[in-house]
Amino acid sequence: MNHLYCSLCRKKYGLKEILFRCPKCNEPLEVVCELPKTNKDDLTRRRENSLWRYKDFFPLKGKIKKISLNEGGTPLIKSFNLGRKIGLRSLYLKNEILNPTGSFKDRGTSIGISWALHLGFDKVGTVSTGNMAVSVGAYAARAGIKSFILVSVGIPKNKLGHISTFNPLILEVEGDYGQLYYESLKIGKKKGIYFINSDNPFRVEGQKTVAFEICEKFSFDVPDFVFIPVSAGGNFFAIYKGFKEFYNLGFIPKIPELIGVQAEGCSPIANAFKKGKKSIERVKNSQTIAHAIANPFPPSGNRVLRIARENKGKIVSVSDKEILNAQKLLSKYEGIFCQPASATSIASVIKLKKEGYLKGGEVIVSILTGNGLNDPSVFEYYKPNLKKANLNELDSLLN
Amino acid sequence: MNHLYCSLCRKKYGLKEILFRCPKCNEPLEVVCELPKTNKDDLTRRRENSLWRYKDFFPLKGKIKKISLNEGGTPLIKSFNLGRKIGLRSLYLKNEILNPTGSFKDRGTSIGISWALHLGFDKVGTVSTGNMAVSVGAYAARAGIKSFILVSVGIPKNKLGHISTFNPLILEVEGDYGQLYYESLKIGKKKGIYFINSDNPFRVEGQKTVAFEICEKFSFDVPDFVFIPVSAGGNFFAIYKGFKEFYNLGFIPKIPELIGVQAEGCSPIANAFKKGKKSIERVKNSQTIAHAIANPFPPSGNRVLRIARENKGKIVSVSDKEILNAQKLLSKYEGIFCQPASATSIASVIKLKKEGYLKGGEVIVSILTGNGLNDPSVFEYYKPNLKKANLNELDSLLN
Repeated sequence: MNHLYCSLCRKKYGLKEILFRCPKCNEPLEVVCELPKTNKDDLTRRRENSLWRYKDFFPLKGKIKKISLNEGGTPLIKSFNLGRKIGLRSLYLKNEILNPTGSFKDRGTSIGISWALHLGFDKVGTVSTGNMAVSVGAYAARAGIKSFILVSVGIPKNKLGHISTFNPLILEVEGDYGQLYYESLKIGKKKGIYFINSDNPFRVEGQKTVAFEICEKFSFDVPDFVFIPVSAGGNFFAIYKGFKEFYNLGFIPKIPELIGVQAEGCSPIANAFKKGKKSIERVKNSQTIAHAIANPFPPSGNRVLRIARENKGKIVSVSDKEILNAQKLLSKYEGIFCQPASATSIASVIKLKKEGYLKGGEVIVSILTGNGLNDPSVFEYYKPNLKKANLNELDSLLN
Repeated sequence: MNHLYCSLCRKKYGLKEILFRCPKCNEPLEVVCELPKTNKDDLTRRRENSLWRYKDFFPLKGKIKKISLNEGGTPLIKSFNLGRKIGLRSLYLKNEILNPTGSFKDRGTSIGISWALHLGFDKVGTVSTGNMAVSVGAYAARAGIKSFILVSVGIPKNKLGHISTFNPLILEVEGDYGQLYYESLKIGKKKGIYFINSDNPFRVEGQKTVAFEICEKFSFDVPDFVFIPVSAGGNFFAIYKGFKEFYNLGFIPKIPELIGVQAEGCSPIANAFKKGKKSIERVKNSQTIAHAIANPFPPSGNRVLRIARENKGKIVSVSDKEILNAQKLLSKYEGIFCQPASATSIASVIKLKKEGYLKGGEVIVSILTGNGLNDPSVFEYYKPNLKKANLNELDSLLN
């Protein structure tokens, strides 16, 4: 029977309990659900293109009001120019920018909010100043329910503007942002607000579909590597879980090597991985251009460490310079403008190729998690190739 | 045989001639191509989700290098909350925001640039300060060719930033912007630059697929009305052409009533339609918040007038106040943040319902042409529902 599960204590909890972390060891819980009796052929024949094509892989049984903006089903395109430039024969880009609000978060929000309604909640919330805030605000609007967005002090005006369009109640909270995550879970329970934070087990259920889509696009012959920007760690776990489920069903021959990528200026998981430690340590002075993944104390950090070690994965970090360079290369050579946090995945592909870890013939997928327009402050790093002209000068300048 | 055609002079031109407008009467040319011998069942079974599922409906025969970022295949979602609020039972939103660079332009750019390469060009250009500039810049990057973007003086810094990420040569041109369009066609021919402007016949071929997708989503039982923001007029024509082709193939029983929408502050086509005139007059002091459709002298204006008259359509206009209100309603009730130009379509749906032209039971599609983030200056019109708090106050504020 479907349940919530702590993979560390091996303890089960009821699916409908309002629990996000294990009451015993405080690790994030996961959904364990009975996998559907389907096969690959049945799957490929399905007509639905959004993530709801995998409806029977979610723990949402019975009468469910589907809150959807048609998330998922994002393009997986081959990188022709950039791949060649890096020296890779088979580099693929999973363009999560093309989710309804511009990031992968929409996958998790859709399932999370549908589950919240199923549980009887009419209020949802999240702790985020970026992609997740926008996503939860938008989906709450679509569901016609109230939302509460907890942001940290000094949120950039542009981000506040974007969140505000969906009309949530925004609380600008002073104090430790890491602690705010834990507070939100407590207070949410008390006040009847369902918090869909980054490692909410039902959010993870939505986000695991990225892995499903990759498998289907490769006709179930999975890539060798998947590069994933890592912040709280929820998405890394989600993608792992997706591959694992398809592997358990016998759909794919192996789980790809998952490379988690953090920004050097805030890389608690990569640090612990490098030092061979079992648990992460809080980063004190987090500073990076990749705001969307700058989490000094990732709630799923230890879980990511465990998965990376048990499954031949790797957690690495890249510098801001490498990130910006990767962002520019993606725009200039492939026409995709992603946010700095997403560019970390390409930055580390480049790095691992240079270091010889990647040889060149591998099949590699880089997850581009969010839209560059969500973070327009980076425009300052782009020098326009601009000339002034009048109509008569056009002839001489168009060369 | 496939050819270019002037529907006014009824004159044919070779498909590969570098012609955009009729040399005789200066009206925009269109592609006439042999329609494929396919049927509805075959079409619905196709697995490709991007607009390339309609490959045989394009004039691209033989060996074509497909320049694609997976454009098209955008969601058509039912508006539950807003539809009910307006008093409409069946309002649908075609979310063109979810094209690769955030607007419908990508459909046309993909086909236009693939055609340019086929003709042997290695340089492309466009006259635009907005969505089309970004789109052509991005697709030229993807194709690995040079691009030239002609913008008008005083382009907002944010837009310049976005275009610059794709590294095109940007020319900031002083002088009449309307004239610039005509100049670009002349100079492009001379300098070997293929201009993919708004009513380029091959751009239109890409953009007609919006209509195809709508037909497929409704299982070929077309909606009663389609509301389309109108600027240069190329997209209105494209959508009409798409429906017409499916109608000619016997796939659909009728062509929906197409309602073109302009902003009151710049509505040359709506003005001429209202006055019963055959041709548009240049608007002198164009001023509207809907920058993306503020074209004072639309190159396809007369064509749009003809189509609207011959096919029981309508060209209307809405005020900036109505536009902003519609934009807010879409965000607040459906979780979709579109740019003001897109919101005109919902603004006119609301207006025509109030005026009694729409009764309430009709099936209506509103085309949301582009992403609100492409035009973040509107954030100033959104007052955040914001409260400041510290961790201890959370309990009392989360209500």
